Amino acid sequence: MELPMKRTAFFISDGTGITAEALGRSLLAQFEGIQFEQITQPYINTEEKAHAIVEQVNATAIKDGARPLLIDTVVNQSIRTIISKSEALNIDVFSSFLEPLEEELKTRSTYSVGQSHGISKAKEDTYKARIDSVHFALDNDDGARTHHYDKADIILIGVSRCGKTPTCIYMALQFGVRAANYPITEDDLLDSELPKALRPYRHKLFGLTIEPERLSSIRNERRANSSYASLKQCLREVEEVEALYSRHNIGFVDSTHYSIEEISTKIMAKAGIERRFSPR
Amino acid sequence: MELPMKRTAFFISDGTGITAEALGRSLLAQFEGIQFEQITQPYINTEEKAHAIVEQVNATAIKDGARPLLIDTVVNQSIRTIISKSEALNIDVFSSFLEPLEEELKTRSTYSVGQSHGISKAKEDTYKARIDSVHFALDNDDGARTHHYDKADIILIGVSRCGKTPTCIYMALQFGVRAANYPITEDDLLDSELPKALRPYRHKLFGLTIEPERLSSIRNERRANSSYASLKQCLREVEEVEALYSRHNIGFVDSTHYSIEEISTKIMAKAGIERRFSPR
Repeated sequence: MELPMKRTAFFISDGTGITAEALGRSLLAQFEGIQFEQITQPYINTEEKAHAIVEQVNATAIKDGARPLLIDTVVNQSIRTIISKSEALNIDVFSSFLEPLEEELKTRSTYSVGQSHGISKAKEDTYKARIDSVHFALDNDDGARTHHYDKADIILIGVSRCGKTPTCIYMALQFGVRAANYPITEDDLLDSELPKALRPYRHKLFGLTIEPERLSSIRNERRANSSYASLKQCLREVEEVEALYSRHNIGFVDSTHYSIEEISTKIMAKAGIERRFSPR
Repeated sequence: MELPMKRTAFFISDGTGITAEALGRSLLAQFEGIQFEQITQPYINTEEKAHAIVEQVNATAIKDGARPLLIDTVVNQSIRTIISKSEALNIDVFSSFLEPLEEELKTRSTYSVGQSHGISKAKEDTYKARIDSVHFALDNDDGARTHHYDKADIILIGVSRCGKTPTCIYMALQFGVRAANYPITEDDLLDSELPKALRPYRHKLFGLTIEPERLSSIRNERRANSSYASLKQCLREVEEVEALYSRHNIGFVDSTHYSIEEISTKIMAKAGIERRFSPR
């Protein structure tokens, strides 16, 4: 009998569910032929909620005619035990990995929920730095201000709508990086020098580029049928901005086929910028 | 012999490293007594880079006098094999979990790198929605515009500096949620009605609150010793905004002791907002 090619996957956590989701999606992405209905259930932190999930999973098993996948990062042992009795293939992350870690570290784990995201006194400073970085990215977005560039970890440059803003915000939120961005305009492209505001900070500059066809399609959504959005204009700007990058020896990445996560981590790897994480 | 209480942990990936990091940090957070030096190495996608990592890990083992922990989400088999020969405790996520999944799904995994973050044609629409949500959050930040509230999934309200902006941006970036935010000012608090711009959207409103002491400390960084930042003022605003929430039956969460991840996922769970993910 052929198994159905649509399966349901549950990502269950007693915290935010972000880790279970990230891991679950990475694993399922390895099975291209199968369509997965993905359901995240965060904050399953009482036995009552755990029993409700088991009922949902079991009902799904009947509906799908195939047992669901259940990837969980639940820390609490008694909740894990309840969940493990559902009609699912249970990928139990903490059971699998805490034991070898306990053995290696010669200590028992604290089994406390959501440690990695909760704010302990010791973490507060790093956390604050992350929030400050978000405000820095917003205040220094799109060339709005240039007099704080001395405090920037990186200044992202590129033509209008090539992806600078979301990339800066992601670097700030996820990694606590102070990222400013500056749009390279047509006037800037006429000049063989760098824009004045950027000259003292050449070592902090990093470029974004994008395929002209994609840029044109993005710009068309904003200003349909404008010369700003025309393929001709996009071709010219992209060609010239790439020439500018190479003239001034500025590293750059192409954003066309990558997600914000990929663009951000590629930039940080290339520019040698460290991720700022909460030390414990 | 006592093992040293400082250990080094490597998070290794042939993609962005975000999943390895999230998982690694969750696992290490369970061992409170130990100080971990955490090193992320993304894009380990060639045998040459893999050998370099092994050297780094082995050098660290000698330096620390204890073997490092190595949590990897490397998909490529030959790179995994090289890494597994380092002097580390290797937590190999894909080896551990792909096999039971392959058995359950009666198919081999594609072992392709970075699927979960790469943009396939099929994912492009969802990805675009995420970027559009970021721009929506920025355009509708801090009450800047109110005429797009019909398109919002949620409108976050609260007093100045209680955490609305980073929360909205996180919901947009991580979950593709269109989140606007509107600051509740002193004038708004004098009125027993909701601010005019919000009245048609009461069902979309969600409140943030914060402990007055913390609010005062945040505001003091912005405008030191102002009456805006005084504890007295913060006490009054917080009391009144909470009264407003309860008067209009608006759900709210306290941001004081939680990370953006926690605040965002709590709001979404309470407000019943779905996470928008790339379907495969």
